[in-house]
Amino acid sequence: MNIDDKNGMTVQVRNTDFKPRRSLTNWLIGKPLQTADAPHQTIGKLIGLAVFSSDAMSSVAYGPQELMMMLAAAGMASLQYSLPLVLGIVGLLTILTISYQQTIHAYPDGGGAYIVARDNIGVVPAQIAGAALLTDYILTVAVSISAGVAQIVSAFPEIFRWRVEIAVFFIMFIMLINLRGVKESGITFAIPTYFFVVVMYMTIIVGLVRYFSGTLGLVTNPPELTILAEPQALSLFLILKAFASGTASVTGVEAISNGITAFREPRSKNAGTTLIFMAMILGSMLIGVTFLAGKVAAIPSEHETLVSQIARTVFEGRGILYLATIVGTTVILVMAANTAFADFPRLGALTAKDGFLPRQLTYRGSRLVYSRGIAALAIIASILVIIFQANVSRLIPLYAIGVFLSFSLSQGGMAHRWWKSGHLKPGEEKIEPGSVVRFEKTWLLKMIINGFGAVVTFFVMIIFAVTKFADGAWVVVILLPILVLIFITIHRHYVNLAAHLSLEKYAGQHHIGRHRVIVPIAGVHQGTIKALKYAESLSKDVTAVHVSIDDDEAIKLQNKWETWGDGVRLVILESPYRLMIEPLIDYVTEFSLNRLENEMITIVIPQFIPHRFWTNALHMRTADTIRKVLLGQKDIVIVEVPYQVD
Amino acid sequence: MNIDDKNGMTVQVRNTDFKPRRSLTNWLIGKPLQTADAPHQTIGKLIGLAVFSSDAMSSVAYGPQELMMMLAAAGMASLQYSLPLVLGIVGLLTILTISYQQTIHAYPDGGGAYIVARDNIGVVPAQIAGAALLTDYILTVAVSISAGVAQIVSAFPEIFRWRVEIAVFFIMFIMLINLRGVKESGITFAIPTYFFVVVMYMTIIVGLVRYFSGTLGLVTNPPELTILAEPQALSLFLILKAFASGTASVTGVEAISNGITAFREPRSKNAGTTLIFMAMILGSMLIGVTFLAGKVAAIPSEHETLVSQIARTVFEGRGILYLATIVGTTVILVMAANTAFADFPRLGALTAKDGFLPRQLTYRGSRLVYSRGIAALAIIASILVIIFQANVSRLIPLYAIGVFLSFSLSQGGMAHRWWKSGHLKPGEEKIEPGSVVRFEKTWLLKMIINGFGAVVTFFVMIIFAVTKFADGAWVVVILLPILVLIFITIHRHYVNLAAHLSLEKYAGQHHIGRHRVIVPIAGVHQGTIKALKYAESLSKDVTAVHVSIDDDEAIKLQNKWETWGDGVRLVILESPYRLMIEPLIDYVTEFSLNRLENEMITIVIPQFIPHRFWTNALHMRTADTIRKVLLGQKDIVIVEVPYQVD
Repeated sequence: MNIDDKNGMTVQVRNTDFKPRRSLTNWLIGKPLQTADAPHQTIGKLIGLAVFSSDAMSSVAYGPQELMMMLAAAGMASLQYSLPLVLGIVGLLTILTISYQQTIHAYPDGGGAYIVARDNIGVVPAQIAGAALLTDYILTVAVSISAGVAQIVSAFPEIFRWRVEIAVFFIMFIMLINLRGVKESGITFAIPTYFFVVVMYMTIIVGLVRYFSGTLGLVTNPPELTILAEPQALSLFLILKAFASGTASVTGVEAISNGITAFREPRSKNAGTTLIFMAMILGSMLIGVTFLAGKVAAIPSEHETLVSQIARTVFEGRGILYLATIVGTTVILVMAANTAFADFPRLGALTAKDGFLPRQLTYRGSRLVYSRGIAALAIIASILVIIFQANVSRLIPLYAIGVFLSFSLSQGGMAHRWWKSGHLKPGEEKIEPGSVVRFEKTWLLKMIINGFGAVVTFFVMIIFAVTKFADGAWVVVILLPILVLIFITIHRHYVNLAAHLSLEKYAGQHHIGRHRVIVPIAGVHQGTIKALKYAESLSKDVTAVHVSIDDDEAIKLQNKWETWGDGVRLVILESPYRLMIEPLIDYVTEFSLNRLENEMITIVIPQFIPHRFWTNALHMRTADTIRKVLLGQKDIVIVEVPYQVD
Repeated sequence: MNIDDKNGMTVQVRNTDFKPRRSLTNWLIGKPLQTADAPHQTIGKLIGLAVFSSDAMSSVAYGPQELMMMLAAAGMASLQYSLPLVLGIVGLLTILTISYQQTIHAYPDGGGAYIVARDNIGVVPAQIAGAALLTDYILTVAVSISAGVAQIVSAFPEIFRWRVEIAVFFIMFIMLINLRGVKESGITFAIPTYFFVVVMYMTIIVGLVRYFSGTLGLVTNPPELTILAEPQALSLFLILKAFASGTASVTGVEAISNGITAFREPRSKNAGTTLIFMAMILGSMLIGVTFLAGKVAAIPSEHETLVSQIARTVFEGRGILYLATIVGTTVILVMAANTAFADFPRLGALTAKDGFLPRQLTYRGSRLVYSRGIAALAIIASILVIIFQANVSRLIPLYAIGVFLSFSLSQGGMAHRWWKSGHLKPGEEKIEPGSVVRFEKTWLLKMIINGFGAVVTFFVMIIFAVTKFADGAWVVVILLPILVLIFITIHRHYVNLAAHLSLEKYAGQHHIGRHRVIVPIAGVHQGTIKALKYAESLSKDVTAVHVSIDDDEAIKLQNKWETWGDGVRLVILESPYRLMIEPLIDYVTEFSLNRLENEMITIVIPQFIPHRFWTNALHMRTADTIRKVLLGQKDIVIVEVPYQVD
């Protein structure tokens, strides 16, 4: 279509349909999708629970185990404290659930920690939340996949030595799935999630029935105890450390508040209800697993998981029900990793759109997914898995700091928001960047609830950082401020650039009165003459420049120039130290200093374009170097006149 | 100076004195030298012998040993054949000496195999000789350094495990010396060479005196025998194989004929006499070492060299004289490697000047040496040393084929030359490319001498290739034709290019009647406007093109364009699959197809130049990609208007 606007200017809009070419990538990740293909579908509570809870629920597979492994440093007797500690963690889960209920209702368009902190506290807290969440997502992948492989290893101990390879394979597999970006129907999530819920409840219920009927035995051939710390007396420090390990169980609770837009209307209500269901399922599983672990005298070990020990005791051996439990647990862990593959690139793109990460992360690849973010996540997570040898216990100390930091910032932001809404008149609205604050009658109660959540999660984070500092938490403590600094530096670059390039206070461009043209030549041939003719079409003021490292060659060139040079002035720069670039740059700079206000200096470079790529290696590529160096000089335009030879 | 020539055209010649900047390289290899600094000094016979014979004489250190090691496969008794075989090798040496005498007198300006083959046989044989010599130089470095390290290891067995590292260190050290390119005074060569000659003769003479006076004992604690082949009965094949190993002793004999120009006048006579001295010294040493090795019952072994075993038996222990022998031998071997560092880059530059290797090899670095050739040699030789674990016996099978192939081509070329000179009239001269053939009365005798040399060396090469084929010679047999093919392909490229670019039959350039300009824009800002103004100064026919992957952005851009676009036509290309480059290329191609004969299409690209290098990573660099792709299209000129932000 053509739009003729009032000034008579023509703006022409053309539809093209260029697709990426067929390639190996195409085959692996599927055919390209149009921008308009992005799907918009909403889901109900049942499917929503499946989609958003794999991260949280899967932590049943490693949370209690890590807690017990830590306690075991003070002897097997101290394992009696596991259940009280897990109850404490379920308390924490309850606080989080109540807190997030309020977020879900206040942010029907999705209230992740980054957005809530950005809207209600400020830029730096938002970037802290962003950095915390991004590291958290990476660790979610590493931890979940490692825990998933640990399940498989429990059932098939002979593959223990391949665990790192298997873990990396899983990550690559999930990466491919996500690069395809097939919008999974909810059913894809529902089947494995509910399968897990069913087998896990079955294990727990059968276990409880057998325990109370007195037929539950102890674990036969228990694995070797894995000891994480020096044997020591039970101390408050050790108990806090065990508690910190256990808090890994509540990671993932925030997922629903990030994804509210996916729910069917009334979406806040649906999402809120789903969150409560999820918390109830997770809490009951945590208690059930921990209780049974104590009763069957399971041994926390890296060679066989608690879930495996409980299941084979409850089901009396490695039968079909045992295997179902292992499969269900493995699958839910892999799906938890998959969740991070959705969240990391999305948050990366959001942060990049705000200008705190490279803008390339906002670009959606041929399958409409943020491919660069997906690839980055897979690579970093794989590196972590390799460094830590797919060992959950060694990864955990890096894990939960980011999670609790983002919880705390998010709840703190909500508290501040309620405080503001309490200071409005009834019915008044205040439009803030990114959100609208409305008057709220019960603001004080709500502020106290979120404030309490913020304080509690903040203290959990401190406990975690202090008790786990030496075990690896220091990495995150150092990394997070560095990341925030990088984000802010990137942002400053974009803001400065935009300000400098802005047309708002732009006085306009000098009129170009005259072109002065320099043509660097290495020899006199068709390529050079072509460039010379082009230069002459730009201006009457053309100078050819030759850097000479060989007197005989220079004389030959001079003679040829008399025939072919069209009367254009030739400057020969003798270079006794055989440098090709420096004398030319110097000449151009001198030339440039003498120019008038409205003169434009243009360098016309004859550029040889090799027919075959390997012939590149047979040429000095001086033209490339000249181009690169001169582009950096101020206000010099580079013209490349290519000459090809077939 | 300004030269106003007859057409009123000004050619201006300027002297500059740009030196490479101070840098780490500077510090390592010394301050830059001017082209005019290249030294020209000549040397006499005494110094000439020292400069050119290290390669040949040093082979005493490994030639007899490799020969004996091979014989030992048929039991220790077969070592009695070593002396006869070495006498055969000395016979070969004599033939070569007589042959090369004639080359030296016919080529007073230097008659390496490459030049002789090029002038007298043809291009392909010259390239075969070139390829053979270049591989030979690489192997000279690898073999000599490995043999040198073997001497050190003989004296200090505890460093056996570090031999590869030491060898690579030596190569890097020699590389640095050669990159400095300090023109060593002859004395630098004379001292170590004559030191070696003295200690080696001393060892041999003392050994002979003690043998004939009956006081020479046997080697005490001889090292373990190194067995290279399966134990087998003595066969003709094994004897030929042992002979082939021994021929490594005559490598380096051609050095003087390459370097005649370095000699004082009458240079052919001086060089010829020096060659005879060298052959006599080498021959006598070979016989002496082999004779004594037999008498002291030395064991060929990779853990202790023959020279070391003889020296400690002759001098009764590892005293000062023993150490002097080891040091002398090691130093001469290192100097042999050094010779290759002079020859390889020089031959590389010569071949490159003829257009058979990348022209960059003709470029002399800041110290007036062919730095790229030197670095290439060091790197390839180091890789060989690492692959073959600095083991002389494993390197030898690759070594002598190239040497004898070049001997044979060189002597064959001489024979052909004599044949031609026999067919001239007395006093007649025939000017051939690169040399003058004069009438020669004794042409038949001379032809027979060189022809015999050619045939003998050819057969030695065949013997070598056949007997050592399975041990590694196959690598060279395959490699040489490939190298020759590469050389010829490179040459074809340069020749074609020169023909295509030649102005000889050049009809001249179309007159540029009109510029049609396209400005690809990603946004409307100061950078874009600057490019737009430049485009407008080139032509009235300017079109701005924007590839849109986001409708909202496109509308914003359109609005801004109405304000800032100067009435220039804007084309928006919608790209539903989010490809940035392809729609633009397609548009330009279509545009290009519609142009008239004398229209020139110019793409003006606004190019963002980041202030700091890391900010590169924060931009899409689409402009770079557009430039690269469009440069490859025929007859499209690329203009880059840079915009910098500080």
